[in-house]
Amino acid sequence: MSEALRCGDSSRGWRMLSPPQTLSDRTKSAAYASRDTVCTDHMVVVSWDDETGWSDPELTAYGPLSLYPTASCLHYATECFEGMKVYAGDDGNLRLFRPSLNARRMGLSAGRISLPVPEASELEKLIIALIAVDGPRWLAGRPGSWMYLRPAMIGTHQQLGVAAPRQALLFITMSYMAPLHTVPGGMHLLTSSADTVRAWPGGFGYAKVGANYGPSIPALQTAQRAGFHQVLWLYGSEGICTEAGGSNLFFVWQRPQDGKRELITAPLDDNIILDGITRQSCLELARERYGRDLVISERSYTINDVFKASDEGRLEECFSAGTAYFICPITRIQHRGVDIAISPGDVTTNMRNWLEDIQCGRIAHDWAVIVKPSTPSSG
Amino acid sequence: MSEALRCGDSSRGWRMLSPPQTLSDRTKSAAYASRDTVCTDHMVVVSWDDETGWSDPELTAYGPLSLYPTASCLHYATECFEGMKVYAGDDGNLRLFRPSLNARRMGLSAGRISLPVPEASELEKLIIALIAVDGPRWLAGRPGSWMYLRPAMIGTHQQLGVAAPRQALLFITMSYMAPLHTVPGGMHLLTSSADTVRAWPGGFGYAKVGANYGPSIPALQTAQRAGFHQVLWLYGSEGICTEAGGSNLFFVWQRPQDGKRELITAPLDDNIILDGITRQSCLELARERYGRDLVISERSYTINDVFKASDEGRLEECFSAGTAYFICPITRIQHRGVDIAISPGDVTTNMRNWLEDIQCGRIAHDWAVIVKPSTPSSG
Repeated sequence: MSEALRCGDSSRGWRMLSPPQTLSDRTKSAAYASRDTVCTDHMVVVSWDDETGWSDPELTAYGPLSLYPTASCLHYATECFEGMKVYAGDDGNLRLFRPSLNARRMGLSAGRISLPVPEASELEKLIIALIAVDGPRWLAGRPGSWMYLRPAMIGTHQQLGVAAPRQALLFITMSYMAPLHTVPGGMHLLTSSADTVRAWPGGFGYAKVGANYGPSIPALQTAQRAGFHQVLWLYGSEGICTEAGGSNLFFVWQRPQDGKRELITAPLDDNIILDGITRQSCLELARERYGRDLVISERSYTINDVFKASDEGRLEECFSAGTAYFICPITRIQHRGVDIAISPGDVTTNMRNWLEDIQCGRIAHDWAVIVKPSTPSSG
Repeated sequence: MSEALRCGDSSRGWRMLSPPQTLSDRTKSAAYASRDTVCTDHMVVVSWDDETGWSDPELTAYGPLSLYPTASCLHYATECFEGMKVYAGDDGNLRLFRPSLNARRMGLSAGRISLPVPEASELEKLIIALIAVDGPRWLAGRPGSWMYLRPAMIGTHQQLGVAAPRQALLFITMSYMAPLHTVPGGMHLLTSSADTVRAWPGGFGYAKVGANYGPSIPALQTAQRAGFHQVLWLYGSEGICTEAGGSNLFFVWQRPQDGKRELITAPLDDNIILDGITRQSCLELARERYGRDLVISERSYTINDVFKASDEGRLEECFSAGTAYFICPITRIQHRGVDIAISPGDVTTNMRNWLEDIQCGRIAHDWAVIVKPSTPSSG
């Protein structure tokens, strides 16, 4: 492959190093108990070079990558990724949820971190190809369960000068992860301290690049040591609410001016928050199904607005929205030593059910993309 | 090694896979012509695990690392590094420049990115051990030349959940790099655009973590395509001057209020800029050697202050200070389409000479640490 990233061209074929086998339940159980992320048998790997372009994609056995100590990604965080799930439906089918949006965002993130931009439709085919081979073995007979897909790209060029990598590697793994989206009793958030900021205008908070995550871990550790699950990231001296950990954040409250019920989340226009696919889907479903019963707002609001709404009895619901934690009710927020408690309500529940209905194929919807099992021909 | 990172304990010994050999000049020439960073024959590798602590350090043949695709550093930028040089002196000795400061900063960076903090004195010993073996082969007979040292640490734990890595790898490589610190005609800077910000209060601009570098590359590319060498990073709506590419930035001007000659650089107190060792050394030498003839200031100033000084004939010098580009005169700055030209002067020249005299051993100074050649016993 030279100019564009392409796959699915049968003339090229897939290289596949180990054939599918039956996976025992014991193997699965051992995987579930591990403290490490456990990946399935295969991964997709495609390399890129600024002179020769993209290599032929390989579907190969999952295993370690060989990277030179001077590889760009190990020093300068020239790396980006996507997170998505494949869902085992009630009807036995495997489904992806709006994968074209992940593939497109991967290109946006890649460009922001000076990596080559893969063609979205081709990236989507690679993701589907991996699921088609490994998905059935891990998800068969487990309706309602899911596996996690992680497309990632890293700069592999051996050059310590700070520059755009001349070589890169795109890889896709599929893994089992603990079911994060059931937090018993709901999620508890601690607001970020005044001296810790996740993202800022002119930065890269909107891109799914590694540089947004590692630097956030110390604040997460502080929150977790204090008994909270995640950080509610504030921005600016006025305490603008942006994200909940790595998820988008929604509130439902009655507006002070007219008492109207409002679903509110931070806007995308200042590029601070991630343009989450679950976020976007929530907004679209709310507009479509609540109609005039709910004002849908993407605008800035502060932590003081939230606490004031709570004090005045106007705060109804709060939830996080993202792939890892899905729709997760937030039941407690602490800001500068003061706590508020929040109960889950109908918007949170509806969002969760509406999305699950699509993901599990309980209703037909064009956001769900069925992945058919396949055994690729060996190349 | 369990609790603390230690080396130099002879009872442990060093594992060394390939013995030193004579390096031909042809090999060196080929290395110098390569577009990739070329490393010497060996590297130091130490692994860390949250249960077992640090492993015994290995001095091993330079070669690829084996990293799982789910390694933390490839997704979440859990990585930090240091940059330093070893100088071949006029007297044939090899010298490091204030290595204890690099070793200490590595710990600060590691903590900021949730990696284990190595003991500074032990890290320094590991750096010296690598130079003692590989330094003489590359630097013998080349007084005034240098090699680049890159201690780095990465999170290697296979876990896709965003969390502090439970495993890490510290490695040190030594490489030849093109002599960046001779930019013919001086360095030309383009100020960052209003929608691109490198670092911000509450962020991590002060730490040498990968997350500060990759995201800056697109702005660097924009500057380079427009014919400039580096970006002059501005912060805030008032255009506060912070850094020049990956170096610290100094100006010499006459103060408007009293005409006094002033050496000015951005302050450390808001944690936006890197606490550069060359920066610190410049400030210390200037205080010691210029005395009352130069006001030394670490305080915020804006790009408008710079252009006003230029307009009023008060701007005397500008230079960047860092390990990679050393003391480099800046001769042109463009901001929003307007250019100013600056000529190098005595402060720039003195800083360069004073530091070189120490690094090359022309004067005895306790900032220079002599590294004696050694051949470690194989373990």
